[in-house]
Amino acid sequence: MHKKLFIPGPVEVRKDVLEKMATPMIGHRSKDASALQRGISDKLRKVFYTKEEILLSTSSGSGLMEGAIRCTTKKRAAVFSIGAFGKRWYEMAKFNNVPADLFAVEMGEAITPEMVDDALSTGKYDSIFVTHNETSTGIMNPIEEIAEVVKKYPEVVFCIDAVSSAAGSKIEVDKLGIDICVTSSQKAIGLPPGLAICTFSKKALERAKTIEFRGYYLDLLQLYNFIQKKDYQYPSTPSISHMYALDYALDLMLEEGLDNRFNRHIEMAKYVRAWAKKYFDLFGDEKHLSNTVTAIKNTRGISVADLNKELGKRGFAISNGYGDLKEKTFRIAHMAEMTLDDIKELLENIEDILNLK
Amino acid sequence: MHKKLFIPGPVEVRKDVLEKMATPMIGHRSKDASALQRGISDKLRKVFYTKEEILLSTSSGSGLMEGAIRCTTKKRAAVFSIGAFGKRWYEMAKFNNVPADLFAVEMGEAITPEMVDDALSTGKYDSIFVTHNETSTGIMNPIEEIAEVVKKYPEVVFCIDAVSSAAGSKIEVDKLGIDICVTSSQKAIGLPPGLAICTFSKKALERAKTIEFRGYYLDLLQLYNFIQKKDYQYPSTPSISHMYALDYALDLMLEEGLDNRFNRHIEMAKYVRAWAKKYFDLFGDEKHLSNTVTAIKNTRGISVADLNKELGKRGFAISNGYGDLKEKTFRIAHMAEMTLDDIKELLENIEDILNLK
Repeated sequence: MHKKLFIPGPVEVRKDVLEKMATPMIGHRSKDASALQRGISDKLRKVFYTKEEILLSTSSGSGLMEGAIRCTTKKRAAVFSIGAFGKRWYEMAKFNNVPADLFAVEMGEAITPEMVDDALSTGKYDSIFVTHNETSTGIMNPIEEIAEVVKKYPEVVFCIDAVSSAAGSKIEVDKLGIDICVTSSQKAIGLPPGLAICTFSKKALERAKTIEFRGYYLDLLQLYNFIQKKDYQYPSTPSISHMYALDYALDLMLEEGLDNRFNRHIEMAKYVRAWAKKYFDLFGDEKHLSNTVTAIKNTRGISVADLNKELGKRGFAISNGYGDLKEKTFRIAHMAEMTLDDIKELLENIEDILNLK
Repeated sequence: MHKKLFIPGPVEVRKDVLEKMATPMIGHRSKDASALQRGISDKLRKVFYTKEEILLSTSSGSGLMEGAIRCTTKKRAAVFSIGAFGKRWYEMAKFNNVPADLFAVEMGEAITPEMVDDALSTGKYDSIFVTHNETSTGIMNPIEEIAEVVKKYPEVVFCIDAVSSAAGSKIEVDKLGIDICVTSSQKAIGLPPGLAICTFSKKALERAKTIEFRGYYLDLLQLYNFIQKKDYQYPSTPSISHMYALDYALDLMLEEGLDNRFNRHIEMAKYVRAWAKKYFDLFGDEKHLSNTVTAIKNTRGISVADLNKELGKRGFAISNGYGDLKEKTFRIAHMAEMTLDDIKELLENIEDILNLK
């Protein structure tokens, strides 16, 4: 039996979107491929509120995160971490011999604009990396406030991991001065995993040109140059199946209306939070809760593994806590094509299994 | 109208394989994901005639080619090129600050075992990179003879680009002493693009452990360690859709029988070559022609672009020549699930369009 996925990625994918994954192949050097990929970039510019370029990579979000830190750091990278995925960005720097410092807070906390200001005011850094939404803790960083601080440092290239928030939470890339905003297909966009996406500003482009060893497959400059020269065709054969599904999903998204979509995510998040407060408690700083995933503190000491097993029998899946938080929290994702009714159905089943009523 | 693809990737994909791309999602940290991915590795070991580990990467073949050169070269890489994709491997080394030398022959020629012996006997190299099948020229290197030479140098890690030949041409990885054999989903395996595959020997593993900056997403050692620890789950969210389709395609492949499959490819190749000799001529060294793609010399000075346009109206697509060979050659791929009847139908249409009879 299929389990409906309330995990923070891969998300549940609509049947009609899944069917687009089965579209027959076309040549990746054909005019049809150019038209498809150009159209996707045009639509994604709307989702990201940007006039800058969009790059697609056949990889997970981690692929473009690595490309971003390698292609933008000439001096030193300041990596701000609020959980597992912030730390991953720092590791990517280390594994590529890119100078970097890690600024981490406790699990459940957010970055403050002051922390960013303190770091950047040292003049040591020419790139900054911030997780927008941390799925391991259900925390969403105050990206607008952080952006205001980063704007004071025009030499700093500003990179955001919006893997689990883009298309589910409003991120006005150009207005915030974000140079590279990375996301992935299998989260709030509502596609299967396998495709990564990022915005790429002129500033990021100019910085990349000054860096000698950017690698090949994940080199953002190569992707940029190639799509300019070859009308949105990519250097290596891309996942054409994901392109078809993404193009279709973007049409659905723009039809729903971006603000409607973001509000739907907020509405679902509020409902889950209220439910969590009633029966359990919320994990982490309540001023910075995520719109796409909620981490619930296991105040009742239930077995999260057993709960998920029972939910599985009924056709649902949620996530246990991440890493050390495995049994101390559990996580419910409310993103992509989920509706409030889906969320209500899930929570009623949890209430029933745990005899909460 | 859909055009049946006789281009050297992406290939025509069977309808039932395409439909597997639309399988509903599962969590990538679930037992189901482990079972699926473990099963794929078991089946791929048969296709590659290896007892060593199989690594999957959500990327194009270029992704794992880059990973291979970065993870195995401590001293210096010897890269042997017979066309566009051999050169690409050399560029990957350069773009990652990996010391490398390029040994290139003219387009249409193959590498000789003597060339390899001359290079390795200098003692300068601890890794070697050879294209098995070069789609840009339709040439297949004499990999068995080259392997015999490489065996004389036990410190050298032996890497093969079999992107456009694996599963279409027999490559006995363990017998030949190949340490890393890279391929990709959209060629002779018969899947849509988006997934790369490689074999990974103990020797490659031990070498990778000695190299400090291997990157993150394309680090073969990380992939290896993670699947050992997490029962064939991958560090980043993989393309689950491709996993389902690959698992199914491998069943079809093993059902056909590997030798039957390789013979079918040889039979198609022979037919296309004979046809080419009758109406045009073959491009390149006739002692080393590819079993999966044939490059035909445009001795009649036809417009390849016009031919492809007319073929397109009838529901077929072939490839023009690669790069400088654009109008001087044209290429017909005969791989994956194509049959001799498909090939005959295509060639009859070409005869008809060009009034060859």
